[in-house]
Formats: sequence, C-alpha cells, structure tokens
Amino acid sequence: MTSPALRADGRKADQLRPITFEAGIAPHATGSVLVSYGNTRVICAATIEPKVPSWMKQQRVPGGWLTAEYSLLPYSTHERKQRDISRGKIDGRTVEIQRLIGRSLRAVLDLKKLGENTLWIDCDVLQADGGTRTASITGAYLAARLAIQTLLDAKRIPENPLVDSVAAISVGLLEGRELLDLPYLEDKDAEVDFNIVMTGQGKFVEVQGSGEESTYTYEQLISLVALAQKGIKEISALQTAFLTKQLLAR
Amino acid sequence: MTSPALRADGRKADQLRPITFEAGIAPHATGSVLVSYGNTRVICAATIEPKVPSWMKQQRVPGGWLTAEYSLLPYSTHERKQRDISRGKIDGRTVEIQRLIGRSLRAVLDLKKLGENTLWIDCDVLQADGGTRTASITGAYLAARLAIQTLLDAKRIPENPLVDSVAAISVGLLEGRELLDLPYLEDKDAEVDFNIVMTGQGKFVEVQGSGEESTYTYEQLISLVALAQKGIKEISALQTAFLTKQLLAR
Amino acid sequence: MTSPALRADGRKADQLRPITFEAGIAPHATGSVLVSYGNTRVICAATIEPKVPSWMKQQRVPGGWLTAEYSLLPYSTHERKQRDISRGKIDGRTVEIQRLIGRSLRAVLDLKKLGENTLWIDCDVLQADGGTRTASITGAYLAARLAIQTLLDAKRIPENPLVDSVAAISVGLLEGRELLDLPYLEDKDAEVDFNIVMTGQGKFVEVQGSGEESTYTYEQLISLVALAQKGIKEISALQTAFLTKQLLAR
Amino acid sequence: MTSPALRADGRKADQLRPITFEAGIAPHATGSVLVSYGNTRVICAATIEPKVPSWMKQQRVPGGWLTAEYSLLPYSTHERKQRDISRGKIDGRTVEIQRLIGRSLRAVLDLKKLGENTLWIDCDVLQADGGTRTASITGAYLAARLAIQTLLDAKRIPENPLVDSVAAISVGLLEGRELLDLPYLEDKDAEVDFNIVMTGQGKFVEVQGSGEESTYTYEQLISLVALAQKGIKEISALQTAFLTKQLLAR
Amino acid sequence: MTSPALRADGRKADQLRPITFEAGIAPHATGSVLVSYGNTRVICAATIEPKVPSWMKQQRVPGGWLTAEYSLLPYSTHERKQRDISRGKIDGRTVEIQRLIGRSLRAVLDLKKLGENTLWIDCDVLQADGGTRTASITGAYLAARLAIQTLLDAKRIPENPLVDSVAAISVGLLEGRELLDLPYLEDKDAEVDFNIVMTGQGKFVEVQGSGEESTYTYEQLISLVALAQKGIKEISALQTAFLTKQLLAR
Amino acid sequence: MTSPALRADGRKADQLRPITFEAGIAPHATGSVLVSYGNTRVICAATIEPKVPSWMKQQRVPGGWLTAEYSLLPYSTHERKQRDISRGKIDGRTVEIQRLIGRSLRAVLDLKKLGENTLWIDCDVLQADGGTRTASITGAYLAARLAIQTLLDAKRIPENPLVDSVAAISVGLLEGRELLDLPYLEDKDAEVDFNIVMTGQGKFVEVQGSGEESTYTYEQLISLVALAQKGIKEISALQTAFLTKQLLAR
Repeated sequence: MTSPALRADGRKADQLRPITFEAGIAPHATGSVLVSYGNTRVICAATIEPKVPSWMKQQRVPGGWLTAEYSLLPYSTHERKQRDISRGKIDGRTVEIQRLIGRSLRAVLDLKKLGENTLWIDCDVLQADGGTRTASITGAYLAARLAIQTLLDAKRIPENPLVDSVAAISVGLLEGRELLDLPYLEDKDAEVDFNIVMTGQGKFVEVQGSGEESTYTYEQLISLVALAQKGIKEISALQTAFLTKQLLAR
Repeated sequence: MTSPALRADGRKADQLRPITFEAGIAPHATGSVLVSYGNTRVICAATIEPKVPSWMKQQRVPGGWLTAEYSLLPYSTHERKQRDISRGKIDGRTVEIQRLIGRSLRAVLDLKKLGENTLWIDCDVLQADGGTRTASITGAYLAARLAIQTLLDAKRIPENPLVDSVAAISVGLLEGRELLDLPYLEDKDAEVDFNIVMTGQGKFVEVQGSGEESTYTYEQLISLVALAQKGIKEISALQTAFLTKQLLAR
Repeated sequence: MTSPALRADGRKADQLRPITFEAGIAPHATGSVLVSYGNTRVICAATIEPKVPSWMKQQRVPGGWLTAEYSLLPYSTHERKQRDISRGKIDGRTVEIQRLIGRSLRAVLDLKKLGENTLWIDCDVLQADGGTRTASITGAYLAARLAIQTLLDAKRIPENPLVDSVAAISVGLLEGRELLDLPYLEDKDAEVDFNIVMTGQGKFVEVQGSGEESTYTYEQLISLVALAQKGIKEISALQTAFLTKQLLAR
Repeated sequence: MTSPALRADGRKADQLRPITFEAGIAPHATGSVLVSYGNTRVICAATIEPKVPSWMKQQRVPGGWLTAEYSLLPYSTHERKQRDISRGKIDGRTVEIQRLIGRSLRAVLDLKKLGENTLWIDCDVLQADGGTRTASITGAYLAARLAIQTLLDAKRIPENPLVDSVAAISVGLLEGRELLDLPYLEDKDAEVDFNIVMTGQGKFVEVQGSGEESTYTYEQLISLVALAQKGIKEISALQTAFLTKQLLAR
Repeated sequence: MTSPALRADGRKADQLRPITFEAGIAPHATGSVLVSYGNTRVICAATIEPKVPSWMKQQRVPGGWLTAEYSLLPYSTHERKQRDISRGKIDGRTVEIQRLIGRSLRAVLDLKKLGENTLWIDCDVLQADGGTRTASITGAYLAARLAIQTLLDAKRIPENPLVDSVAAISVGLLEGRELLDLPYLEDKDAEVDFNIVMTGQGKFVEVQGSGEESTYTYEQLISLVALAQKGIKEISALQTAFLTKQLLAR
Repeated sequence: MTSPALRADGRKADQLRPITFEAGIAPHATGSVLVSYGNTRVICAATIEPKVPSWMKQQRVPGGWLTAEYSLLPYSTHERKQRDISRGKIDGRTVEIQRLIGRSLRAVLDLKKLGENTLWIDCDVLQADGGTRTASITGAYLAARLAIQTLLDAKRIPENPLVDSVAAISVGLLEGRELLDLPYLEDKDAEVDFNIVMTGQGKFVEVQGSGEESTYTYEQLISLVALAQKGIKEISALQTAFLTKQLLAR
C-alpha cells in the first residue's frame, strides 16, 4: 500500500533513520549512552542504588526495582519548553512516556535477580525530532546493560538479570501511506501513530496505536505492525553489535 | 487456544459481564449516565461550557474542544484510595486514563461542528472491579451524545458533531488463556493486558497492549484483537438500543 | 414572624424538603448512604481502616480516629466546578465543611471504644441545591452507623462506640422571613445563614450563624434556633426509621 | 450557674483579660494596631490597594473588596510552629479563621462606598495565649478604621464606608463553668467553645459554638451568649475610647 | 573618594543609621530581639527544640543544628507584599537571605557544643527600609545569645557554644560615591551593592559584592571592604553593650 | 603563602584544570556550548524568544530580558540526585546559582539593545566535579554570544548588546593553602570558598566569599582575590580564542 516515492528526508517508506549509540556520555552514571535516531538525540543513563523503595521492604517483596524518568531538556524543542519545575507539574505526555519506558525495561528484567538494588533509568532529550520515546527505550536498554555489567564485574550480583534485549520504533499513517520511524515533520501530521516495543527474540512488549482525531482499519493495523517488526529487527542487530564491542573493550 | 472451562464468575472466556446504562445520574450535568460493567460502576457526565480554552482563541483555531477527567472515588476500591488533592498530585495511571478517554472521544467528534463550546467529560468511579477505563469510554460516549442532543434541541448547534459511536473493552492473557472483559481478580494476575477502543462502524481508535513484566507473540496479538472486536460489537449494539430509547423519550 | 405565604417550591416556612436515604450506594465502602434533601444529593461513605494516624501512636493516645472529607463533584453545580487537584488546592469553604463534618461525628463517637481503627467519612456531592453540608452530616452519621454494625457483626469491636445520633439542618433569614432548610435559590440571597447540628437526644453539637454582609438581633437568633430544633427532631425520626429497617434486614 | 471561685489567673468567671491597643506598630501599612488580650498579642495591619480583584471587574461588581489573612508567627506558640510555606499549605484552622475575620469586617463595611480599592487585613500573631481569632477581629477593626481615615484625609473616598464597629470574644464551658475570654490553659480543656462577633450597636455578626467531642444544652447556649454580650459591650467601649484619642491626635 | 556632602537623610557617607535593640519582643521564643537599623525593623527570634533533623541521626553526626528562616511581613514594604504561601513558593531573594543568615550564625557556633538541640532562627521584617538582611544577622546573633543563656541557666548545656559574635552591614556605590548602611532609597539606585558579615574579633564570615547591571574595579572593592569594617566595628560594640546589660539583668 | 607541593590531581596551587569548549551540543538552541572544567561538564544553551515578560510590557520597560536556569542532571553527581520536580521544589543552592548566573550575564548585556527579546540561559550539569557554577557562567557567556550572532546575522537586532565578556572561577582555602579552581574533593573540605566573576576587561561583577563554618582574615581575602584574577585572565583568553574560531567559521 506504501508508494515508491521518497520521503522529505530522502528515505524510503520502510527505511530507518541513521541510528547511532555513544557510550559514556554521563560518566557518573553506572552506565550511559547517547542514542541518536537521526536528529533525535537522547542521553540515557542507568544508575544503581543499593536499596529498594520502602513499600517493597514493608510488603517483603524480594528482589529489586526499576524506575524510569524522562524529560525534554528546555532547548531540545524548536520552541523552548518550560521546565517541569517551573510549570509546577509534570505534563501528561511525560508521565505516559516514563511509565512506558519503565514497563518496557521491566518486561525483560528479572527483578528477583537484581538483588536489593534500584535501577534508575533517566532519559533526557537533548534534541527532539520525533521518536523520542522509542529512542529512549532503545538507548535505556543499552545503558541498563552496561550498568549491570558493572554490577557483574564487581560481583555485586551473581548473574545477569536481563533475560532479553528490548528496542522500540514508531510507525504511522501519513496521507494514507505507511511509514517507518517518523521524524517530527511527519509525526505532527500523521493520522495514525503507533509505538511498538519488542524484544530481541521477536516478542511483543507493547503495542500502542492511536488514531489522532482519526481511526484505522484492521488491515492497516496488521500492516503497520509488520512494518514495525522489520524496523525493530534491524535495531536489535545494531544493539547487539554495539554491546559486543563495548563489553569486549572492558 | 482458550479452554472451555468457566471463569471464576461463571462466564465463558469470550463472554462480557452484564453491561447496563442508567441516564440522569447527575442532573446538573448537560448529559449523564451511570455505566456498569458487572460490579464496575462509573458516573459519566458531560457538561457543555459555552467557551473554549484561551490557547484556542490565541491561535485562532476554529470550533470547540473536549477535555476528559477521570477519578477513582476514595471508596471505589477495596482499600480506601487517598484523594489526589490529599496526595498533592494526580498519579500516573490517572493521567494515562484521562488522556485515553479524551483521545477516544475526540476521534469520533468533529470539533469544528461543536461551535465555540467546551465539552467536559467527567468519569468518576463509584465501584472499581476491573475495566474502569473501558467502562468510562463506553459511558462517556453516551453522556456526550445526550449532552449534544440538549444542544441540538436548544438549537445552540445546527448538526450533530459526533460522526460515529465509540466503545471500549479489555482483553487479556491469564495463565495462557484469552479472556474478554477482565474483572479485578483476573486483571491483577494477567500476563498481558489489552485495552481496545473501536467505533460503532468497526474502525479502531486505540489499541494498547502491554505485557505486565511479560511479553506476547504475534499470534496472541492477532487473537486478542479478534476477541475484542467481538466484545465491542455487542457493546455497540447495547449503546444503540439505549440511545434510541433515551432520545425517543425526550 | 414568618408569613403564611408559600415558598417558591411550595413549602411552608417551617417545612423540610423531602428527605430520603438509600443504603449501599458504594458497596466497597464499609457503610454507605445516598442522602437526598430535595434536589441536593450526597454520596456518604464510611470506610474502616485497621490503623490509626502515626501521631496517635507516637503520643500513645488510646483508641481510634475519625477523619472527614467533603467534595463537590465537578458536575454537581450548575456551572461545572473545577476539581481541587486541577486548581492545586482545596478551597476554604471545603476545608470549613470537612472540619465541621468531622467535629459533628466525633461529638457522638467514643473514640476509645473504636479500637485501633480509623473511620474515614467521605461526602461527595452528586447534585448541589443548598444544604450540602447539613445533608452530608445527616448522611455521614447513617453511613458510619452501618459501617460500625459491620465491625460489630465481625466482632472486630465489642460494643457500639456511637453514643448518640447526629443530624443537621440550615435555617436562615430571607427578606426578614425565617425559613427552614434553604435550597440554593433561597440560600444565595439570605441575609443570615445558620447551620445547626444536634443529636437525637436534643443536645447541640454546633451552632454556626453568620450574617452575610449583614447582622441579626438577639430575638432572631433565638427564633432561628427554635426553627432548627423543630427540623432536626423530624430528621432524627427519619434516621431512626431508616436504621431500624436496615439493621433488621442484615 | 458560674461559681464565685477565681480562675487560675485570678479573674472572675465573667471578667475580661486586660485589653490594650497600640497604634502604628507597622508604619508601612495604611493603618496598624498591636492588640493585646492578656498575653495574646496580634499585629493587625490594614493596607489599601487602589485596585480590585479581576473577577470583580469582569462581573462589573461596583465598589471595593476586603480580604483577610491570618498567621501564627513561628515563635508565637510554646512549641515552635512550622511556617505554612514550609509545610506547603495553609492548615484548616488558619483557613477558617481568616474567612471568619473577613466576614466579620465585611458585615460592617459598605463595599460600594469603599471605591475601587482593596482593603487587605493582615493579622499576625506575635504571642498566642488563647483567643487569637477574637483579638484579631477586634484589632482588625481598629486598623481598618485608621486606614480608612487616611483615605478620608487624602480625599480618596468621600465618606466613611464603615457603618458600625465590630469586636469579638470567646466564651466556653470548663468543667461545667461558664467562662469569659479563655486563655490557652482554659481553652485547651473546655468542653464547649464559642466565638461570638458583635457590632458596637449590639447586633450579632457571627455565633460559632462547638462542642469539642462534647455537646451542650439549650440553656447553656442562651447563658453563654449572654456572657459574650457583656464582654463585647466592654470591648466596644475600649475601641471607642482608643479611636477617639487616635483620630483627635491626627 | 567619598564627597563631604550629606546624604538625603542627613548622614555622612561613612555614618550608620541609628541602631537599637529591644529584648523580649516575642516572649514564647527562647530568646528574641527587635532590631532597628533606622526605619528597618526586624523581629529576630531564637527557639531551641530539643531534637535534631533526622538526617543527622541517620548519619550519626554529633551535636546540634541551626536553621534560619526569613520573611517580609506583607505590610513591611511600601506596596503590600503577597505572602509566600499565597504565591505558593518562596522567592529566590528570600532563599538567598535565609541561607546567608544560617551560614553567618553557624560560622560562630560550635555545633558540637550545642548538644542534641536545634536552634531555630526566625527573622520577620516588620518594616523594610533597606538592609533587612544585615539587620537580621545582627539581631539574630543577639536572639541566639539570649536563647543560649537560657539553656546555660537551665544547665541544659555545659558551656556557651558561641565562639565569637557576628554582625553585618551593607556598603555600596551610588553615583560613584561609597556609602555605608544604605536605606531603600539609596539601595534601589546603587550601582554596586555589598553585604559584609564579620565577627566581633574582626574576622570575615561573608563578603558578597554584586554589580547591579554594572561592574566595579579592584580599588573600589578594597575601599568598600574598609568602609564595612569600620561600620561593623561600631555595631559589634553596640551588641556587646546590649548583651552586657541584658545578661546582668537576668 | 601557598606551598609548592602538588595537589591530588597533580596541579600547582595556582593552576587551572584543563578547560575546553565544544559548540553546537544542542542544535535546537539559538546558541550552545558544552563547557568542561576538568571533569565538570555543563551543557550551556542560549535560546532567544521574540517576546518579553508581561511585567515589562505593563511597566513599559524598554528593551529585552535575560533569565537563567541551572540544574544538576540526576546522573551528574556520584549519588543520583532526585529531580526538582520529584522533590516538588527547587533547592536553595540551585536558586542561588541561577540568580548568580543571571546577574553575571546581565552585567555585560545592554538589555535595551537586545530589542523585545528574552534570552533564556539554560545550564544543565552533565557531570559535577566542583565548580559547576563557575563553569556555567563561563559557558553561558559563550552560548549567549553565539546566539546573539545568529540574531545579528538574521538582522533581528542592529548591534551586539554584549558590552564585554564574562567568566568565573572558584578559589579557596584548604588546610590554610590558597587554591585555584577547586574540584569536588578539595571543595568539600575547604574552610573558605570564593566564587568570583569578572569581565574580559578585568572588572569585577561578583565576589562571593563564604567561610564554611569558619572565618577568614583581611590578608586572606586580598590574596584569594588576586589568585582568582590570575585564573580569570587565562579563561578570558580561552574564550576569545574559541569565539574567534567559531565566528570566523560561520
């Protein structure tokens, strides 16, 4: 159903933007990665705190915890975005995204094997050009994996609690065309917007597909999911290559 | 894949709970409905304010606006839930749900035809037994439709801005079994939890499927979507019957 | 001093609106009642939590505690009322009312006999037409009485800690006329506004009489108190009849 | 019914504490008074702002406005009281008191004659020993009267908008004894606590009588009101003497 | 470099305003002083609480703690200043000042000798005419010294933990002239504004010199520091005289 | 007075850490720089908004405005720092620093020449190792200069409103030794801590010298100021070199 014409940035309909990872952007974090999906750049940091929330202690839940926070830095958007603390509250979109990042990571993390540790995931967007939540999930997994290697190396935990990798991509309908990995210019006008999170082994973690003041058919649903599967397969391969190089270098 | 055994409440795997609607629960609202999905009961009220948010005026966006708010009344849950104002903030789950309700209604509402009016949707849960967000969407549509009829009757708008009906249902995987319309006891243990919103004409508005510290396969995705389609078709029919009776009685 | 002419709603000056009680409006609460004073309708719920505030433990105060919360649901008023959490704070009127409800209930409750339990009183106004605070007190007593019966039946406390019943009514001066149980249309223009809380045995719990940008004489004070006494006597009888029926039915 | 025995501070049951007023405590206010009821001392300041709240302009309400704020300074109580801003919110007692002060002053103020001015009343308690709200009302009237004289002298308003004076006193039941003007030691143990506000001409503005986990009879109500009338008559005379001296001295 | 011409209030460039201290302004505080620098008047209260913050206990830090709070009373300024709690937050200037007061007092206080006590310093400005932070520091020292004498007299601590006295003054450049102790009229137009805190023994605690949308030279820095040294020497002598008289009188 | 022994990081007492600047770290800002003082790294972004605060319009103040915000990213410190929005308020240290950055930049900015624009300065610390406020000021000047060049190039303002450059450095006393540019390990134990802001032409903008539970002599004040002057001279030269290269490259 997608047309052969190229998109505004020269990509084909089913082509990802250039995706890159840079380790060590925040050296005081236990693990950190600067992830880029084209012009979208996000600082992903994973920090280990050797304690768990008090409710876990009270309820005697064994194992650890993972919490994610997401923020648009004020200068990441074309018009400067006021800081949450200046507005006095987190906006609804931010809440949704940080809950999504947390769920996505917990789906591949065996909290019992984490020990009595909290894994903080921080995703701060340096430059926003569409897909900040999907880039955040992809980068957060890498930061978490690096942080956990530090725990393993220090023998603070006996085995890797991550049971699979996780990555995310957006797909959408724009003027009826099915597109992979939408930048801001496409995203703002898309009739339908999907964010899909999958594991390296091809399992689904999350499918979120919204009509934006619009609706979609069953056929479009099936077709968009397939497009996302293709994209995530490519991203998973990039993650593996990056981690192999990083972990060998330690 | 679902087994023939009955569920804890005696239902079959693909059977809805008893769904009922009661009009006029909040007479000062422009339109209101008390919706029940089994023991889940939600007060849905639609109130028309003859003005729009200031940002719409500034940006000269024509037409009206729709905003949704959702709240668990403190005594709706088995353990009393502290009010948002006592906690000092809205929790993340509430934010997600009220954004979902808003998007779902706006997908079937032609805002330009609403005139310079704001349609407030309030969903207050009186009794929570799983599926409060799906019951809220289904009831909110009815309250909105009744409110709009009042506007039409008063000739404050020339035509109905609702272009379709909208309803929602949950489906999930519990011990590998695919279940329709999960009550709390099933929902809290489900491995996978989907909330699906569709229109009366069978279009999708929203598909949200999350693994809860778990993942799911492509086949499960397809199968769960089909189960939800069946449930929403039945709910849409109930909505039509209720509205026909209500609108004839005016 | 009151004239023989009928009021706007056809009542005599010293006549109550129709007062009704409906048990079980919120089944997850320990006890609940929907109370109506004419068109004023309030959901009153009493919930027992088997713990007391931490300051009681620290100061080793024996017995239990009672806390009341009051809220106007957004669609209860003719113009939609913004939620407290959206405004960011509770308004002064709400604070006054929930303190009044709490004091009124505690005046007839022997906290020592409550055991180490907290009794939460929630009053949520579904429809506001004057007298929401007096209806709340009258209904809250009934919800509390039902909740305590549940504790007694479960043998969680050995004896009933409620030493008397409690009910409330408003009286006021409108164009010099002394009126009982004012609906919104009378209340908004009244020169003097009294809220009076009394027990079933005829003792006073609270007398609050305010001139609204106005003042009143000693004779008016005496006369308005007498009018309230008459009204509360009638309401107490309705409470007794309701409870007798409810408790027999258990 | 009151016994002849003296109280802990040597007073008779119907005797006021020494009451004094000192003008000019806060010279940057338009009018200010330091009021003492025994060891209770309150800074009362009245400030005129030549504008009205925006809602008055929008609704085209003619005349001015009066707003009252009340605060216990942290060192006014025996145990240091945390500032409201440190707690993050105003406590319920403070809200009740500042609403009472505002209503009491507005009852004797013709807002239309105030012109387009806001009269801010600030009552900050320097030392708290019972009766801070009644001392605040009595002192606030004096500060307001002095502030208005400044407006009259500057010909910013043509006539005095205060139509009467206003003063307040507490009365209560302690071990069954009826007492006037309770200091902290009596107040904390009183079974019944009344705050009564009256004008110089003997009209009632406010009667607030609460049983503190207790109740009271009709006879006690009548008797306590009479005791308060006696006290306020004496305070009104002190107010007149003070103002006569102050206004002559200008 | 300063010219011989007198200032608007008749002072010479290097002359202090009249500085006075009055003990006992807030009798419920452990120690209190009303300090005046000309028309700037500040209530300084020191209150001892026999406990320390929980973080000190957790980290097993020995000794006590000192915390300072500063506030402009609403009627202290020429235009009424909104209360912090009404604005919902403390303004940046207030935060800076209360941190400065705290640091200044802690510089002369041996916290280990304070025992497990918290010394609360409250500075509430009654009248603001420039130099409120410097008057606060000077008065806070006196209030703290009086409070500590009460602890010594009650044998709650064995020796005086204050190792030196502390006082503060402002100096500034106005139209190039170096001035001591600036009132509001000079302060608002000054190009450069210094606040300097020194001990009775002539040591520096704090030098804060800011160009206000302006800059200053090295020579001006040296000259302004010398002017402040002269002023603080005079204030220290006044502090000693006041304390000698107060402590003898106990 | 400084000893010849090397410091923990191998530097001499009067030696700066390696200082580097990297342009373009945040491409959506009007100008941006990543500044490093050794291991302290700060993202400095300058964003131009073509409007001014409403109070400026109301008071008809001509020209533009500059506002600075500063934040420690959660993973910048060795122990993860909670976000301001999670704590619900900005801490006092952050308020002080952002006010200092704002004053420092405004001292070299002719607001009238800025036109009706607001220049937002954002400083987000990526890695904190002492001196974050001084690095922020030095980097913020560069980001502002680049942003203004963009305005000049676009002819949105006719001339450069920056009248001088500005830079900052810390100096301190550690075990009696005078040290330049303190990293965290030195800073946390320093007895005296100075932050000094100067212009490229050698004028002082701000001198802030605090004894940390300690005091200092006149001789130490003079000596520390001289040490800072030396350091800032070197930093100013680095700023000039960086800007020359950047502006030529445009």
